[in-house]
Amino acid sequence: MARVHNFSAGPAALPLEVLTEVQAEFLDYAGSGMSVLEMSHRSGAYQAIIDDAEATLRRVLSIPDTYRILFLQGGATLQFAAVPLNLMRRGRAGYVVSGNFSKKAWQEAQRYGEAEVLATSAPTGFDRIPDLSPVSAAAAAGDLDYIHICQNNTIFGTTCWELPETGDTPLVADVSSCFLSFPLEVERYGLIYAGAQKNAGPAGVTVVIVRDDLIAEGPACADVCPSYLSYRTQADAGSMYNTPNTFGIYLTGKVFRWIERTGGLTAMEERNREKAHRLYDFLDASELFHGTAERGSRSISNVTFRTPSPELDAALIAGAAEHGITGIKGHRLVGGMRASLYNAVERESVDALVSYLASFEAAHTGRSL
Amino acid sequence: MARVHNFSAGPAALPLEVLTEVQAEFLDYAGSGMSVLEMSHRSGAYQAIIDDAEATLRRVLSIPDTYRILFLQGGATLQFAAVPLNLMRRGRAGYVVSGNFSKKAWQEAQRYGEAEVLATSAPTGFDRIPDLSPVSAAAAAGDLDYIHICQNNTIFGTTCWELPETGDTPLVADVSSCFLSFPLEVERYGLIYAGAQKNAGPAGVTVVIVRDDLIAEGPACADVCPSYLSYRTQADAGSMYNTPNTFGIYLTGKVFRWIERTGGLTAMEERNREKAHRLYDFLDASELFHGTAERGSRSISNVTFRTPSPELDAALIAGAAEHGITGIKGHRLVGGMRASLYNAVERESVDALVSYLASFEAAHTGRSL
Repeated sequence: MARVHNFSAGPAALPLEVLTEVQAEFLDYAGSGMSVLEMSHRSGAYQAIIDDAEATLRRVLSIPDTYRILFLQGGATLQFAAVPLNLMRRGRAGYVVSGNFSKKAWQEAQRYGEAEVLATSAPTGFDRIPDLSPVSAAAAAGDLDYIHICQNNTIFGTTCWELPETGDTPLVADVSSCFLSFPLEVERYGLIYAGAQKNAGPAGVTVVIVRDDLIAEGPACADVCPSYLSYRTQADAGSMYNTPNTFGIYLTGKVFRWIERTGGLTAMEERNREKAHRLYDFLDASELFHGTAERGSRSISNVTFRTPSPELDAALIAGAAEHGITGIKGHRLVGGMRASLYNAVERESVDALVSYLASFEAAHTGRSL
Repeated sequence: MARVHNFSAGPAALPLEVLTEVQAEFLDYAGSGMSVLEMSHRSGAYQAIIDDAEATLRRVLSIPDTYRILFLQGGATLQFAAVPLNLMRRGRAGYVVSGNFSKKAWQEAQRYGEAEVLATSAPTGFDRIPDLSPVSAAAAAGDLDYIHICQNNTIFGTTCWELPETGDTPLVADVSSCFLSFPLEVERYGLIYAGAQKNAGPAGVTVVIVRDDLIAEGPACADVCPSYLSYRTQADAGSMYNTPNTFGIYLTGKVFRWIERTGGLTAMEERNREKAHRLYDFLDASELFHGTAERGSRSISNVTFRTPSPELDAALIAGAAEHGITGIKGHRLVGGMRASLYNAVERESVDALVSYLASFEAAHTGRSL
């Protein structure tokens, strides 16, 4: 069967070029006589793989030397605990609650200290990034260990395009669903984390980028922090305090290389904006469909939309497969549709989706676009 | 290049049959038009994969219905924290310290309560499983939340062949390096955990098998336990509280199927004993080499041995590659050599190793075996 048009929110489409490369060397990596899967993480061959992944990511994201890069396990969810466990030195942090995952992060932090909601878009159903001026005000007060945002809200299709000014208060960002979709000014953050399963690779790898000085003293909550979750311990061990997800990191490194050789993050952003505009333009002109995110907050990674009725939504989703389209069902918490347009989703897939939506609209409204 | 003889302690050799199967369906899983790597963990296709992995493991290990099977991330190391966080209800557990990892498990538990060493072989350099009679005595006293053992000590090449009687006190076992090497009486344990990267699959998957009643109330240390580490939460969510290591679980399921169709754990044990005896018999007859584990504690998964001198050890290790042999260097903590003879290591590989050892001995002693 031909490749499907995969709009899954993660795990998600990977570059075919990368998959083909991995498949070709699956039984014998670089003449080693074994699969990468079988390779000791303490071997020279594997050390070269993880070193290359780290170095490539450093180039691709222009990560300064003062930041450490960690490849961990457990997803963003485990980071919801790791962040306060490591950084809550004075026991107080601020959270922007702009969706389901930032809410979970905020709730998790409450186990380890005071976690204050500085801004939230809950009252409008998370359809936008809330006004962030209270965040800068709270940062200026200077008594927070860090301020946490979720930069792209996968479920609600919103992105925080203007980072809040947080001065000396470290900004911590869950960037899972926009990681490597566009360039980031890494210097503006104290810590960035991302599950790899959207733009960067397979599920099972979490990338953490953290400023050296924030972890120098070890975990803030050293008495209850599992050793595995100590950023300091993992940084000192080069992400190999214990056996890491070796194959996942290898694949992630291949994706970093693919991004680099296809133009880097500037080119990624351009392609991603083009794809997203193609879909948003259609939705804006449609009489049946409408985007659910407020315009200024629209994500280019996840486009959420609906028809006026859950029944039509269901019919659209059910009919997608025969057009070779998959993964457009909205998150179970919100319903509707969602198309994730990560780096590896081809422009042709977006065209196929738009063409399906148009034919569906024509069939259900008699209007032809 | 031909396949090497891979004696790595983990990640380790995987069945070539499994690797070939995975390679064949790498770009298009079962006509889905995508790689398993690209598949949403919430899709029907993926649910079938994880369900099959769980059901197969249940058959292979004869796991009663009263036990839950979890596929988690973070390795055994993260379980060193998860076990006390979930089970230390009265704040007191007993540990058998029989090697490096059981020592780490014991140290980690001290964060969350009182962790008492019931028996240790530290005084003899962990060359054996210690006398476990104090364990049964402590269990009989009835004031421990659980008793923890590491059933196979990867670094020191020892196995606990006779489980201690622990009565009503749950026995918790790290079985990482002997998991699926031989049958286990699951009913004798309260909880079993294993990193998959030895016998069961790739690094990045941790299997936890836990008796229902132990997790019904949720984590013992609910105030500080990261949500990710709550066995109850993960069990309720079918190991998908968040995105799991989807590809790793898929591959692990393939290994379970391979074990089942090649005769199950009884056949595995028979083959593994044969391989181990082949090597131990050679070592026992050798005048240059000697096994480092005490006879009654010898592991069939990891065979540790040395020559009388670190220089000869180094020469042996350095010369291995040209015989197509890799992964025989002992753990950096103990030096010497170690050959891991997991399920996927072929008898021919053991023959090749023995033949290399014999020729090395002949060259260095003038004695021909």
